[in-house]
Amino acid sequence: MAEDSGTTAIGVDLGGTAIKGGLVTPTGKVLAQHSVRTERDGGVDHVIERMVDLIDHLRKEARNLSVKVQAIGLGMPGTLSRRRGTVISPPNLPGWRNVPIVERIGSATGLSVMLDNDANNAALGEYLCGAGWGVRDLAVITLGTGIGGGLILDGKLWRGYFENAGEIGHNIIHAGGRRCSCGQQGCLEAYSSANSIVARTIEGMEGGEESCLRHVHEAGDPIRAEMIVDAAAAGDKLATRIWQEACWYLAIACVNLQHLLNLQRIVLSGGLSGAGERLKGPVEAAMNEVCSTKLGHPPELRIASLGNSAGFIGSALSVFLPG
Amino acid sequence: MAEDSGTTAIGVDLGGTAIKGGLVTPTGKVLAQHSVRTERDGGVDHVIERMVDLIDHLRKEARNLSVKVQAIGLGMPGTLSRRRGTVISPPNLPGWRNVPIVERIGSATGLSVMLDNDANNAALGEYLCGAGWGVRDLAVITLGTGIGGGLILDGKLWRGYFENAGEIGHNIIHAGGRRCSCGQQGCLEAYSSANSIVARTIEGMEGGEESCLRHVHEAGDPIRAEMIVDAAAAGDKLATRIWQEACWYLAIACVNLQHLLNLQRIVLSGGLSGAGERLKGPVEAAMNEVCSTKLGHPPELRIASLGNSAGFIGSALSVFLPG
Repeated sequence: MAEDSGTTAIGVDLGGTAIKGGLVTPTGKVLAQHSVRTERDGGVDHVIERMVDLIDHLRKEARNLSVKVQAIGLGMPGTLSRRRGTVISPPNLPGWRNVPIVERIGSATGLSVMLDNDANNAALGEYLCGAGWGVRDLAVITLGTGIGGGLILDGKLWRGYFENAGEIGHNIIHAGGRRCSCGQQGCLEAYSSANSIVARTIEGMEGGEESCLRHVHEAGDPIRAEMIVDAAAAGDKLATRIWQEACWYLAIACVNLQHLLNLQRIVLSGGLSGAGERLKGPVEAAMNEVCSTKLGHPPELRIASLGNSAGFIGSALSVFLPG
Repeated sequence: MAEDSGTTAIGVDLGGTAIKGGLVTPTGKVLAQHSVRTERDGGVDHVIERMVDLIDHLRKEARNLSVKVQAIGLGMPGTLSRRRGTVISPPNLPGWRNVPIVERIGSATGLSVMLDNDANNAALGEYLCGAGWGVRDLAVITLGTGIGGGLILDGKLWRGYFENAGEIGHNIIHAGGRRCSCGQQGCLEAYSSANSIVARTIEGMEGGEESCLRHVHEAGDPIRAEMIVDAAAAGDKLATRIWQEACWYLAIACVNLQHLLNLQRIVLSGGLSGAGERLKGPVEAAMNEVCSTKLGHPPELRIASLGNSAGFIGSALSVFLPG
């Protein structure tokens, strides 16, 4: 990687709720960052306009700091084609179909644009300057509304032949099990994502299980995954069951990864990774319980260290990588 | 790879039942092959003696053909350390613990020895000159007594950080499900291996399900997986259920591989792959049923083409590869 010699890249991470961006040096230093709401209901053109505004804002920062912006790295959710520079049909951005996002952003800004999956870019960020630093074989599992993932194999992002590898959230770990938002049954995402934790807690209460979260639900207020983690820590029976199940299924996915790929480290990122030890502890315990000791080394488990910035940092750094 | 200029390697594939070997050119041509029973009950020294005898036999063939033997490639079951040249504890070779097999075979033959996992070598064989030829990203799933696997990623065998990657047979696809011989619950191997197909058929009969295989079982004769495949093809109800379940679970494992790694092809090898279309057809059908179409391309499924020779061919060819 080049030295920091006044060169930067703008990383943009487009999510269903927020667009996050930053001005990042080749060694991962964030010189400026900015975030705006996606306003996805405004449609494709509106969201692209907001992305361009955010990029303009960061370019102004670059001028103030007298640094050069080499290019834009863009992380997008869902399936995409890097070769064609298009987003195919991101589940969290309704109405987006085969949008030539590289061309759109490129012509609006006059900068070259590198496109990749958001989970891949977050993995790259953690690998290059976060909790994945120091190893060459790792997986980053992004536990958010849904579950995504990125694989770094022998120091390189593994995108796969069809460029959409890393979808660990849709690995089936309970054949014939709970229906996932993707249409399959028994996916990891159907058990361990923030959405599924909330849905299963509500189902539990509606099925008659007692919980300290009942008054929130009955008042018509939304239950958030963090509230379930807190309730579990406080000893709430239903919340404890749901959280332990989420950790147990996640442990199975980690054990499977290990048998298949023999990684050195697995990094847990995304909103739920904010639970820190309350996540890592139970997942490690469940891995030891689930995994046959005959089958070799468990990977080291770590909580991500870049938080919500991993996506835009990795997006920016992708600009400086070969290939 | 070098031209065939009179240089060969001896590939040896050590299994629990048979030791198979061959004299193989750098382009995968088998000039001679030989096989002996493992006689594993004879213990470590006895089995190593038989391996050395088989190697001597093939060296004689090499002299007759006036070709040079460059080295020995050795495929062994179970966990091993390539760096140390030791076999750690192969489940199918009781009594073998940390055997320095590279040193033992090397000093007995005076040739250098390359060690790898048998499923890896079989994958290498299919990749270089079998059903995996022509693509660079593939998995070879070996459906035998147990289930092993090998991954070729970007044209190279993926061994993983701990050198024991590819254990797709112990990926859990039914959390809390059937107990596997490895100690875990719900592994692919617990549903789709030859051993589990036989065990589940016997359980079905003992649970009162009717089957044309009942007379075999009651006569005290062993039921083999091939008999179940045949009975299913002939319409036997129990055999059909067990075989379809085996194919369905295998399809789930293939779908998971695809979401995670986005491979171009999956090759089904090992004893059960002898079922050919009777295996490929139902697995493909189940993959289409199981897999969410939102999630991209299914891999191409193929039946292995090297049969029982994949292991020793791949073992031999490993000698000619860099690294």
